[in-house]
Amino acid sequence: MEDFWEDWDLAFEDVFPKSLKEALEGIKEIPTYGERGASRFMYNLLKLEKEKRKEIIEKVLEAVEVLRPCRECFLITDREVCPICSDEKRSKKFICVVEESQDAYAIEKLERYKGVYHVLQGHIAPLEGISAEDLTIDALMERIKKYQPKEVILATNPNVEGEATANYIAGLIRRKFPAVKITRTAYGFQFGSLIEFVDEYSLEKSMENRK
Amino acid sequence: MEDFWEDWDLAFEDVFPKSLKEALEGIKEIPTYGERGASRFMYNLLKLEKEKRKEIIEKVLEAVEVLRPCRECFLITDREVCPICSDEKRSKKFICVVEESQDAYAIEKLERYKGVYHVLQGHIAPLEGISAEDLTIDALMERIKKYQPKEVILATNPNVEGEATANYIAGLIRRKFPAVKITRTAYGFQFGSLIEFVDEYSLEKSMENRK
Repeated sequence: MEDFWEDWDLAFEDVFPKSLKEALEGIKEIPTYGERGASRFMYNLLKLEKEKRKEIIEKVLEAVEVLRPCRECFLITDREVCPICSDEKRSKKFICVVEESQDAYAIEKLERYKGVYHVLQGHIAPLEGISAEDLTIDALMERIKKYQPKEVILATNPNVEGEATANYIAGLIRRKFPAVKITRTAYGFQFGSLIEFVDEYSLEKSMENRK
Repeated sequence: MEDFWEDWDLAFEDVFPKSLKEALEGIKEIPTYGERGASRFMYNLLKLEKEKRKEIIEKVLEAVEVLRPCRECFLITDREVCPICSDEKRSKKFICVVEESQDAYAIEKLERYKGVYHVLQGHIAPLEGISAEDLTIDALMERIKKYQPKEVILATNPNVEGEATANYIAGLIRRKFPAVKITRTAYGFQFGSLIEFVDEYSLEKSMENRK
């Protein structure tokens, strides 16, 4: 080896900026973030002008400080009770059950749904160690008891975990509140897909659910 | 349609938390981040306890405030001149040219290299509109003139853009400083790969560079 490549005494810790190390370690504590995700976030952030990047992170800090789950429906909001639950015009006779706040906001963006939501804060996934008790299912049952809804729409994700979660909750509601109508969001084609490549389950459903 | 699904007057903007909207828009300004990346970051962050997530973002803010490029080599650091450039024991007779700070830190982690670095802050990519002038190549030439290094190691990424950038810089140095030795990091097998699936270029190089 050349003379610039040898064992020597300066340690990596003395060279690597402490603040960067701590920021990276912090981001790695965010669910789904590892070494790569943290690195991608920080180094790309640092490509921006100092004022710009500071402005962005101050906005994130502001969000992190004011946001919390709605006391009623667990939707992420900046108030004690979210604007949907506290709006007199929204009907509590329809409860749309979703896994996460972003799902509710996606439906909300359509500006069509007049009922309220219930955010489960996840899905049942025994392999990940997430059971029904980790979700807000007890609170959902309380709300069904209190509001006696006409219909509960199970809008969990269209995948194995979402199906399992919807089935579990449907069974629970059927036993406890047999009068409540339970519906599940429809399977079918997604706009822009090609029939040739649509999975069999969705293809079958899109035929069955034709109208 | 049912009576809960209709055109009505509450707009999405009145429902979606303003602080969350602004944080998401901020993150979308970070290079490589779009709708999905911003959403993934914020909603996963919000899954953490309030104190925890605040602590993480405060660390990011601290990093964003103190970090800057080294005045000499452009490595991201918390000082005016980075600990590598200001260390008497590091030889300025060897300059290792990298695209980004994280590349220098990856080499630094080996705790073997005794020379200094030069961070280009990117690579030449005409299709992305990034030309040689957008990089710190002028500063590199100044440093070569000043320090008269024995060797410049071109450690840009082993891909098309990295090769193009290394070739461009090699040509420039050869013309301006013909006495300087120019080397390029070696191609070959990466540990853990399977020969069967190694790309032809690397396979060829690993045979040629055998020793």
